[in-house]
Amino acid sequence: MKPLGIGLIGTGYMGKCHALAWNAVKTVFGDVERPRLVHLAEANAELAAKRASEFGFERATADWRDLIADPAVDVVSVTTPNQFHPEMAIAALEAGKHVWCEKPMAPAYADAEKMLAAARASGKVAVLGYNYIQNPMMRQIKALIGEGAIGTVNHIRVEMDEDFMADPEAFFYWKSELASGYGALDDFAVHPLSLLWYLFGHVEAVITDMVKPYVDRPLKEGGRRNVENHDGANVLMRLGGGISAVLMANRSAWGRKGRIALQIFGSKGSIAYDQERMNEFDLYQAEGRGSEQGFRKILAAPAHQPYDRFIPAPGHGLGFNDLKIIECHELIRAISGAPSSIVTFEDGLRIEKSVHAMAQSFHERRWIEIA
Amino acid sequence: MKPLGIGLIGTGYMGKCHALAWNAVKTVFGDVERPRLVHLAEANAELAAKRASEFGFERATADWRDLIADPAVDVVSVTTPNQFHPEMAIAALEAGKHVWCEKPMAPAYADAEKMLAAARASGKVAVLGYNYIQNPMMRQIKALIGEGAIGTVNHIRVEMDEDFMADPEAFFYWKSELASGYGALDDFAVHPLSLLWYLFGHVEAVITDMVKPYVDRPLKEGGRRNVENHDGANVLMRLGGGISAVLMANRSAWGRKGRIALQIFGSKGSIAYDQERMNEFDLYQAEGRGSEQGFRKILAAPAHQPYDRFIPAPGHGLGFNDLKIIECHELIRAISGAPSSIVTFEDGLRIEKSVHAMAQSFHERRWIEIA
Amino acid sequence: MKPLGIGLIGTGYMGKCHALAWNAVKTVFGDVERPRLVHLAEANAELAAKRASEFGFERATADWRDLIADPAVDVVSVTTPNQFHPEMAIAALEAGKHVWCEKPMAPAYADAEKMLAAARASGKVAVLGYNYIQNPMMRQIKALIGEGAIGTVNHIRVEMDEDFMADPEAFFYWKSELASGYGALDDFAVHPLSLLWYLFGHVEAVITDMVKPYVDRPLKEGGRRNVENHDGANVLMRLGGGISAVLMANRSAWGRKGRIALQIFGSKGSIAYDQERMNEFDLYQAEGRGSEQGFRKILAAPAHQPYDRFIPAPGHGLGFNDLKIIECHELIRAISGAPSSIVTFEDGLRIEKSVHAMAQSFHERRWIEIA
Amino acid sequence: MKPLGIGLIGTGYMGKCHALAWNAVKTVFGDVERPRLVHLAEANAELAAKRASEFGFERATADWRDLIADPAVDVVSVTTPNQFHPEMAIAALEAGKHVWCEKPMAPAYADAEKMLAAARASGKVAVLGYNYIQNPMMRQIKALIGEGAIGTVNHIRVEMDEDFMADPEAFFYWKSELASGYGALDDFAVHPLSLLWYLFGHVEAVITDMVKPYVDRPLKEGGRRNVENHDGANVLMRLGGGISAVLMANRSAWGRKGRIALQIFGSKGSIAYDQERMNEFDLYQAEGRGSEQGFRKILAAPAHQPYDRFIPAPGHGLGFNDLKIIECHELIRAISGAPSSIVTFEDGLRIEKSVHAMAQSFHERRWIEIA
Repeated sequence: MKPLGIGLIGTGYMGKCHALAWNAVKTVFGDVERPRLVHLAEANAELAAKRASEFGFERATADWRDLIADPAVDVVSVTTPNQFHPEMAIAALEAGKHVWCEKPMAPAYADAEKMLAAARASGKVAVLGYNYIQNPMMRQIKALIGEGAIGTVNHIRVEMDEDFMADPEAFFYWKSELASGYGALDDFAVHPLSLLWYLFGHVEAVITDMVKPYVDRPLKEGGRRNVENHDGANVLMRLGGGISAVLMANRSAWGRKGRIALQIFGSKGSIAYDQERMNEFDLYQAEGRGSEQGFRKILAAPAHQPYDRFIPAPGHGLGFNDLKIIECHELIRAISGAPSSIVTFEDGLRIEKSVHAMAQSFHERRWIEIA
Repeated sequence: MKPLGIGLIGTGYMGKCHALAWNAVKTVFGDVERPRLVHLAEANAELAAKRASEFGFERATADWRDLIADPAVDVVSVTTPNQFHPEMAIAALEAGKHVWCEKPMAPAYADAEKMLAAARASGKVAVLGYNYIQNPMMRQIKALIGEGAIGTVNHIRVEMDEDFMADPEAFFYWKSELASGYGALDDFAVHPLSLLWYLFGHVEAVITDMVKPYVDRPLKEGGRRNVENHDGANVLMRLGGGISAVLMANRSAWGRKGRIALQIFGSKGSIAYDQERMNEFDLYQAEGRGSEQGFRKILAAPAHQPYDRFIPAPGHGLGFNDLKIIECHELIRAISGAPSSIVTFEDGLRIEKSVHAMAQSFHERRWIEIA
Repeated sequence: MKPLGIGLIGTGYMGKCHALAWNAVKTVFGDVERPRLVHLAEANAELAAKRASEFGFERATADWRDLIADPAVDVVSVTTPNQFHPEMAIAALEAGKHVWCEKPMAPAYADAEKMLAAARASGKVAVLGYNYIQNPMMRQIKALIGEGAIGTVNHIRVEMDEDFMADPEAFFYWKSELASGYGALDDFAVHPLSLLWYLFGHVEAVITDMVKPYVDRPLKEGGRRNVENHDGANVLMRLGGGISAVLMANRSAWGRKGRIALQIFGSKGSIAYDQERMNEFDLYQAEGRGSEQGFRKILAAPAHQPYDRFIPAPGHGLGFNDLKIIECHELIRAISGAPSSIVTFEDGLRIEKSVHAMAQSFHERRWIEIA
Repeated sequence: MKPLGIGLIGTGYMGKCHALAWNAVKTVFGDVERPRLVHLAEANAELAAKRASEFGFERATADWRDLIADPAVDVVSVTTPNQFHPEMAIAALEAGKHVWCEKPMAPAYADAEKMLAAARASGKVAVLGYNYIQNPMMRQIKALIGEGAIGTVNHIRVEMDEDFMADPEAFFYWKSELASGYGALDDFAVHPLSLLWYLFGHVEAVITDMVKPYVDRPLKEGGRRNVENHDGANVLMRLGGGISAVLMANRSAWGRKGRIALQIFGSKGSIAYDQERMNEFDLYQAEGRGSEQGFRKILAAPAHQPYDRFIPAPGHGLGFNDLKIIECHELIRAISGAPSSIVTFEDGLRIEKSVHAMAQSFHERRWIEIA
């Protein structure tokens, strides 16, 4: 197989994260071809050139359409702000490229639907960047649930909290505009929803409350402006098989930095996980003598693949960026036709459908079934 | 002030816990009269005599009405199963006794209302046994919130979980009968609700989902019987001041033994607490350099009164039973007319009203406002 | 058996702790006679009367010899400062009383030897107040080790840290005088040594380093005075069976409040415990699949006797003072001739012998074998 | 500055780790030239070619001397087994290359001295791979200590534990041969010693005990062979300024996977850190009201540079391999003459000198001063 030619649109944090993954995937995994980093696009030409040099791309452009027109490009990483995803992803797919697009697909559901249609029409691989599912700990949790280690799951709680919006006197910026979305729901809840989807499938019914901790925020130019969306969202959910779940997302949660806390309760045990300590999880199994039962803290280890591709010794820890390398490897596997663990545009659309249903449920103050 | 004469009805765990408190309150606090343990009632006469000897009571009876008729009894501890609370508490109040009744007041709301009416008519002190609010850690949390240490509170999460119903093959017993109540809601949720009340006042609106992890359970005599109520309950709530809260209660949560996990988010910081580690809490304050901000783990210490009445050194730890001694002291203070921190029948009725509203919300699948 | 008549000398914290235990032991355990609290001694007559009222003792005296002469007293609790232990304990034993003396026995080893001689001569029960061994968690740890749950133990670490001497500008007081002892070694290390003794027997060889974090301290009256002993001590030790151990004690350890952290390593597993979280311990067993091995956090539960005598539900937590009630129960059992788990004067003398050997090792900068 | 030409000798885990760092350093940091991966050496020619392809090197050789003779190579990564370090590092330095050699320098102290001499003679940069000091958390700890955040440090404890030698029935292999070194001391203790050196400078005096948990181990071919070195080592130490320290290292510590637990006590506060949770540390400062003092858990954040070069959001976590990228960046800075944070051969030799003194102290059962 000839090396994949890579194009990268966008060079913010996620762009850098993709670049790191494309640079590392061969060294880490060995079992794929080393990708050829061909073309990088960034709106500012000077910055584009600088980033191409930093990220190891052969050429740079200020016009992303150049990149898509480049025949040496086989895969396009789309890491621009969400509003640009539809146009870029669709153009890439129509040009016969595979697409690796950061989540969420699009602010508007209709646009996300168009993205899926384009993916289907193209026959190319179209993957969303939901990297938390790539954590070897999450794979181990999925495997444990699959083999019945905690019996039949009946209840789940998931919390996603950060505090970058927690200061009421931080200046108003676009994340508080309604145009940017519902708030925590789009910005955040899609991550835990990707984990629920990965482990248990899709959400079937929801009822939502949303929280607006601060009614307004100061403007840099003086005065204050009303906050238009909600920094917090709490959702009661039903999943398949009668599983009840509670989702709590809050981007104004002082002290939480990257918390995605998952609690899974089954008929024979429980599992707890927190992304802030992404190299461990807790497993309780109702086995053996009662006097010695307890939650077992399991540290990441080579037995939890593909941790072993990064480090041969247990307890040394992967980092957040390593998850992107794993995702990149899965994407390459998908392109080569091998079985892979990815979030396709189909899956992603369903996740976003739940988000819109949650918002509707809040506004209508009632349970919404998701078809 | 002459010593209070104490009557105790019921000698199960809570009866023993009351007895320990009555025996210890003077030694711990010094500032009250040593109570006189006068009369103990327990349905079985032999057991009554045995327990009177164990618990240090002067006399025993198999007929709790004897105890209430005893002029030497000033305060009656009611620790019998919930269904007996109304009759006993009302009789005691009508006989001019103060009453210390274990929570909840009564399975039926109408009965709880009658208890409150009797308390009002009597002019006596009528207190419910919600001892978690007596934890010095909880007092400190209340004081911190009161002085604005975490700013204006906007969001709360509280989880109460145990696992005594988690085994699906445990025999059916009365806790799974509808006659015993809604399940986790009555059995459990009143505890975290007492904490919410203590810290923030009453609940104003709710929407509930309930979880029945196991549809039936084996019978000792063979065969299986349908489970009639719900081991889990999840509630979205609104409190005064627009605070949003989420309550999760689960008595089938493998691995959780006495968890009451509270997370409180404010405009300047956060607080986290877990009853399984009742001698500590975490405080985050958005102060000082960002590079050193973090949750501070605060261990129980003499500065957190009345910990100092038990132990003069920090970090040594109170136990669950000690909370009852503090509650007992507050009760004596209330009787003597001093300011005290107790859950009166008024407060308790309101807590139970919310529980019934939660259940209604589940059955009607809609938000319920609590008048 | 007629009720034991109790005398209590000293009414500081430990005196109160003994009083609480004598008041509660019958209610908690049921299987002993309720002790009769007869006589209390405290140097100041007025305070003695006040404390007798608070603690529930029949009579009070300012002369502890009155108490020892009281024929109604069967057991004497000695809770005075260490320097008074020998005279009081010996007098009590010579008067035919059982003795429950707080640790350590005496500042001078020769005095401790006399106490043991008096105990032997009397034939009475003479017990030291090393209550940490009474924690049901510690009993469970001992049981686990005994049944081989972690295989053959080969290495132990124990840390005891508090911070009451950590402030360098705190006024000089008697604990910094050489006359009060070596410092952390006597003041502290005896507690972890009692745990090592309880679990593994006595120390056989030691080498010690001691730490004096602050050379002098301010005097209340102005000026400064040299600190004469050592707030920290670190000891390498050998126990029987070739077990290596490390003991670290520090009373100037900022942030540590009541830490006694124990790590036990064996050929099949490990155990970790910290007194600051006295209702839990961690157990690692090298069993089952590697991918699910981890430290299990075990919460105190009724299966860990005698937790069940206090609380019938798991995870609710005992307090520090509850350990004294268990110790009191063991003492009563010892008096009645039943098997019991106590630290006798024999055991205590051996513990103190190790402490003196540790100090000698520091001064001579060499390993000391303990005969 | 022209790109550095890189040579890599050895392609085991550390070789891969170096390769990852060389591939990523430019993308992560931006402020250096992208290195040119020129030449890779691995004893087996076929494997060498395979690894060169995987790791992105231009050419491969089975003879490391080819690599050193390659004029395109400016820096040589030496990641072979310890016994080969001296010959390779010295040859590289003599050929005018910079050297990045994995720790420790050499099994024999005399060889390490020769390496230092070669480094001095060459005038080239010679760095050892002690990557734990590169953790942004460790830099923050150093900065805090430097600015007096915990006052004057007086006591330190450091534990390094893993369990890869914990199974007594694991087959005998070369790590149990005396020829491989003292055991835990060389294999392990150098890591915590690098942290102590980084934070506080060198060790001045030591006394050591060593632990051999298992006297023999099974041989694959049947029978058993005596274990020749020690899986555990415990050391009392004195550092400059009268700081006392305790070092404990154990490679047979069941349940510990990558623990390097550091406790630092000062006159105004304390710091605690554990490598198993490398993205956080605990800081206690004796400031403010006593009722709110506690250990603050600080999560890795952009404020802790160079975390910000990897991730712009707090709490997302670096991995073990990321530390090597930081080390690589420091090495490039050193080569370019910029200030850098590295462990030079001078520093490394001093660390190894302490290790040998510790072993001597064990064998002579006495304190050893390190000149």
